[in-house]
Amino acid sequence: MIKPEIASAPMHRLCKKAGAERVSEAAAKDLAITLEEIGIKIAKESLDYAMYAGRKTIKKEDIEIATRKIIEK
Amino acid sequence: MIKPEIASAPMHRLCKKAGAERVSEAAAKDLAITLEEIGIKIAKESLDYAMYAGRKTIKKEDIEIATRKIIEK
Repeated sequence: MIKPEIASAPMHRLCKKAGAERVSEAAAKDLAITLEEIGIKIAKESLDYAMYAGRKTIKKEDIEIATRKIIEK
Repeated sequence: MIKPEIASAPMHRLCKKAGAERVSEAAAKDLAITLEEIGIKIAKESLDYAMYAGRKTIKKEDIEIATRKIIEK
């Protein structure tokens, strides 16, 4: 993966929300890459569900079921 | 959660990377919220590791170990 879609600036803010005082740039980038990987996994699963339902558009319910399948298993 | 740090535009791009033709705005927002929740969980765990190591700064290795603990368990 060359450049993640998720930028590092929101990762810094997200870590502050979690209570962190400081976050290294490498840590923020690593978190962005991790979330991107999880996001692509969820998106692929969502697309499978959308196509199974005869749609080409990913809808909210596809994301919800895909998230349950991937995260909560 | 009122406003996620992660915007919906990168979520659209991420779904396209996963092979989707179209993604509803509600789906993109839901994916952003999901990734934000996972991100905050990882960040909190990372902060615990950083503090345990006597640091106030989250480093890349904290993100890595926290991700392993949260995702791969």
